[in-house]
Amino acid sequence: MTTLFYQPGIREGLTFLDPDESRHCVKVLRKRPGDTITLTDGAGFFYEVVITRADPTKCSFDIRNKYESAGKDYFIHVAISPTKNADRMEWFVEKATEFGIDKISLVECQNSERTFIRSERLTKVAISAMKQSIKAALPAITHELVPFQDIVASCQENEKCIAYVDADNNLHLKDAVKRGTSYCILIGPEGDFSPEELRSATKHGFKKVSLGHSRLRTETAGMAACHILNLINF
Amino acid sequence: MTTLFYQPGIREGLTFLDPDESRHCVKVLRKRPGDTITLTDGAGFFYEVVITRADPTKCSFDIRNKYESAGKDYFIHVAISPTKNADRMEWFVEKATEFGIDKISLVECQNSERTFIRSERLTKVAISAMKQSIKAALPAITHELVPFQDIVASCQENEKCIAYVDADNNLHLKDAVKRGTSYCILIGPEGDFSPEELRSATKHGFKKVSLGHSRLRTETAGMAACHILNLINF
Repeated sequence: MTTLFYQPGIREGLTFLDPDESRHCVKVLRKRPGDTITLTDGAGFFYEVVITRADPTKCSFDIRNKYESAGKDYFIHVAISPTKNADRMEWFVEKATEFGIDKISLVECQNSERTFIRSERLTKVAISAMKQSIKAALPAITHELVPFQDIVASCQENEKCIAYVDADNNLHLKDAVKRGTSYCILIGPEGDFSPEELRSATKHGFKKVSLGHSRLRTETAGMAACHILNLINF
Repeated sequence: MTTLFYQPGIREGLTFLDPDESRHCVKVLRKRPGDTITLTDGAGFFYEVVITRADPTKCSFDIRNKYESAGKDYFIHVAISPTKNADRMEWFVEKATEFGIDKISLVECQNSERTFIRSERLTKVAISAMKQSIKAALPAITHELVPFQDIVASCQENEKCIAYVDADNNLHLKDAVKRGTSYCILIGPEGDFSPEELRSATKHGFKKVSLGHSRLRTETAGMAACHILNLINF
């Protein structure tokens, strides 16, 4: 199976791997000068490079080929309340990255049970999932919790949905979305959105959508939303 | 949020909770005689019962109402190779149960990297997910690894698919399936199915399907397949 390395900054002139990737390349995979490896810069490009110096702390390379990942005409932004259990957020980030996601916002809602996030850890999980699923784009992940009001007032996507089920709403996300556009989907905390949050989102143009008959955990709802948007655009 | 208790054997006349559920009911939730709780037998029924004796090791109850979970006209069987990392299988079982699944078979393929499963642990995860998502049906999970040949030769579902992508196959599962029938979906190990396994499955009527452009981990592929079958039947 292909191993994909991640090295940002290549377009800015960088020609060596960072210490972790150097070690993996030279010590674990035992690559030698003259060997070809594939990198991504996490910003949409793949590079075929030849190793020039197999230094386990700073492995240098020459670029042979650069190619852009197939362009896509849609954009997926999931804005999700962090789960009480941090592992569940890491699972969400891993699975969403595997399916394909452009932006993940961690949102502080009235009922959120967590007030900080380990964003470095989440980015690490996303990098690993990007490499594992051979993608060239690293999702943008917020470094801090974003207040709910900031998300609803300022998100830039063309279409906006909020996952919320009540008596007068049975529109499934899969039937509410269309191909080839940008979406922001709001996923609430274990205790759900508050009535004020729901009103505010609706006022800002968010459409109420259901994710099906089952009561899903927060991270499962986030994955389901991301999966559905990828399916619609397949 | 509703708490759902799990107690098999009610149809056979059992009128008390097992020690774990008794403790949770009496010690954690502090239920008292006269309080009403909701149970499921994991076999399609919900029960509204009144507590008669709040014994923390054997909590007795009288049944007030019994109702059957909404019938469904489809059946989802995912036959999946266990992942090297046991946590990933537990995570798959949890998410598949949340979405809705009837049967999970753990299949020993040529490239499977695990030769035993902790089936008790998997059942525990499924019970917890069933309760959490307020369902009345516990998925059947195989107690031991089933040889690949046994699954392909003997599975009873009307429609059969194998998740496998090659140059001449680009049929997505979502476009291959129809509502209201029974499906068996085969999901391969990290090293994929062997050519012989693929030939054998095809010979036994399994259709090759894709799960999209992304290279998904085994447990992610299993979850995606289960999610798609639920979406089709929504």
